[in-house]
Amino acid sequence: MITKILNSPMGQMISTWRMSEEGLRLGNQILQEKDELGEAIVRAVKCVEDNPAYVSVGYGGLPNREGQVELDAAYMDGDTLGTGAVISVKNLKNPIEAAYRLSKKKTNSILAGDGAMKYASYEGLPCRNMLTESSRKRYEEEKKEQMKEEERRAYEGHDTVCIIGRSRKGSMACGVSTSGLYMKEPGRVGDSPFIGSGFYADSEAGAAAATGMGEDIMKGCLSFAIVEKMRSGLPVQEACEKALEEHWRRLERRGYTNRGMSVIAMDNQGNAGAATTLDEFPFVVAGKDGCRLYVASMDQETGEHFLFAPDEEWLKNSKSD
Amino acid sequence: MITKILNSPMGQMISTWRMSEEGLRLGNQILQEKDELGEAIVRAVKCVEDNPAYVSVGYGGLPNREGQVELDAAYMDGDTLGTGAVISVKNLKNPIEAAYRLSKKKTNSILAGDGAMKYASYEGLPCRNMLTESSRKRYEEEKKEQMKEEERRAYEGHDTVCIIGRSRKGSMACGVSTSGLYMKEPGRVGDSPFIGSGFYADSEAGAAAATGMGEDIMKGCLSFAIVEKMRSGLPVQEACEKALEEHWRRLERRGYTNRGMSVIAMDNQGNAGAATTLDEFPFVVAGKDGCRLYVASMDQETGEHFLFAPDEEWLKNSKSD
Repeated sequence: MITKILNSPMGQMISTWRMSEEGLRLGNQILQEKDELGEAIVRAVKCVEDNPAYVSVGYGGLPNREGQVELDAAYMDGDTLGTGAVISVKNLKNPIEAAYRLSKKKTNSILAGDGAMKYASYEGLPCRNMLTESSRKRYEEEKKEQMKEEERRAYEGHDTVCIIGRSRKGSMACGVSTSGLYMKEPGRVGDSPFIGSGFYADSEAGAAAATGMGEDIMKGCLSFAIVEKMRSGLPVQEACEKALEEHWRRLERRGYTNRGMSVIAMDNQGNAGAATTLDEFPFVVAGKDGCRLYVASMDQETGEHFLFAPDEEWLKNSKSD
Repeated sequence: MITKILNSPMGQMISTWRMSEEGLRLGNQILQEKDELGEAIVRAVKCVEDNPAYVSVGYGGLPNREGQVELDAAYMDGDTLGTGAVISVKNLKNPIEAAYRLSKKKTNSILAGDGAMKYASYEGLPCRNMLTESSRKRYEEEKKEQMKEEERRAYEGHDTVCIIGRSRKGSMACGVSTSGLYMKEPGRVGDSPFIGSGFYADSEAGAAAATGMGEDIMKGCLSFAIVEKMRSGLPVQEACEKALEEHWRRLERRGYTNRGMSVIAMDNQGNAGAATTLDEFPFVVAGKDGCRLYVASMDQETGEHFLFAPDEEWLKNSKSD
């Protein structure tokens, strides 16, 4: 059932969604010029966090049911396995910066809510009201619709930016950032800040990260599962497809519907892979020859997985995130 | 390197630390009489949460650096994979009750901080000031010592109650609850509420849970790793020892010191297992013949793992948790 149009592209960075393209370009430049992995990943994520046009990450992120933007971010260093994360923070300009700094601590490296904000304040990290006029407007409109079912249409907006990188000497790391589900309950946490679910990096094996319905992704520790498959010798693209497939079947047997899960990964040689349960999941691969957008796809009838390089026509017609 | 004095004991429930014994007895009674798995697990955890003598869980839990008791709890249903958790909550009498209720939701099932407390309040769950006079006193004494290094002696108090159960028809589930590291930074989250790290349950394969230094446990998604080994056919005791061993070696290669990690697990036939990197880790197994305390042990020189049933002498000399 595993079919590929493309072989795994080679590169030094890979990221989720089209919205990550500009950030990945900046991060890749740092990696090519200075080989500074942490700086490259943080720069790439910040670029997405700071752009209000991307409504599921950072500034201009879509608010929770009470109109507040609550953010999650994490960073994992694949050399040390050091992991930092902030969970459910408000008014923090760059959650990824806090997560990155926390990843250097051996204890107290994952902080939630007010405690995380205290840390950020102590570290002198900049604050900002993360709600933009346009996000507020969209929130007010949604409120008016007064949809009552738990499975709101609004829940469709849940794209996480995930950036994986590999330095020339083979160090790996990843960073993720999200505002989570639009119109989520206050305090709701998805897979993104959970190690092994939203992200995992081990320079000995590879790195992986996930985006989509967090409550579904975490039930299979999807990122860890992919890295474990690479550790046991599976090529990166097969690892992505097989882990996603196994987990999706596991959920299907329990009667779950497909709410969308997508993954990216890179092995410790720089081979990149991706897979999705969506019709189309754009991702970006960067290396010494620059950045390139690819699309992972799953045939909803047959369950077959594909990767393709989109043409001009596709780029014109697809939405920008 | 895997040596056993005992074979895997059989049972329907298994739990961490001696402090869980009374709760497990109550839970086991419910399981034997009514075969109600969720009720049994919640009852067992609540018994530990409500007892102020156990200073690392619930009421009387040891406070964070600012003198506040912050609690984490999670529940996972191995039939549905439904997972609920509360992260960093204050003044909630029984965090496990909130986690259990949340595990029935398909979205917004993990809540942090104020948002979690809003949910608990909406559900009418009882509040309580979780700081006891004796915990406050210990906190004041600790403060006086003004220890400055990150690796405080205080960090030794980090026992999580984890309860795994199996119904007669083979449903599996687990629940965990903790106040986390004593003198932790405000908002610090350990492995306990993270699916796959602190706990994992899948009735198709088995369940596992972990206690110890959360920042170390989570780096190997230890509970998920154990369940995956059982899924691939490894007996429960070997799955515990092998997953812990592999992860510990991974940390050791990165220069980590052994800060203590212990695991319990049960396969989907009711065989129980446990392993630790400590000298001694007590755990309890319950079934139709009642409750029995066992001890897992690791020889610090050779790395060999043992299980033994403690004698009267051991029981008299060991600390009660």
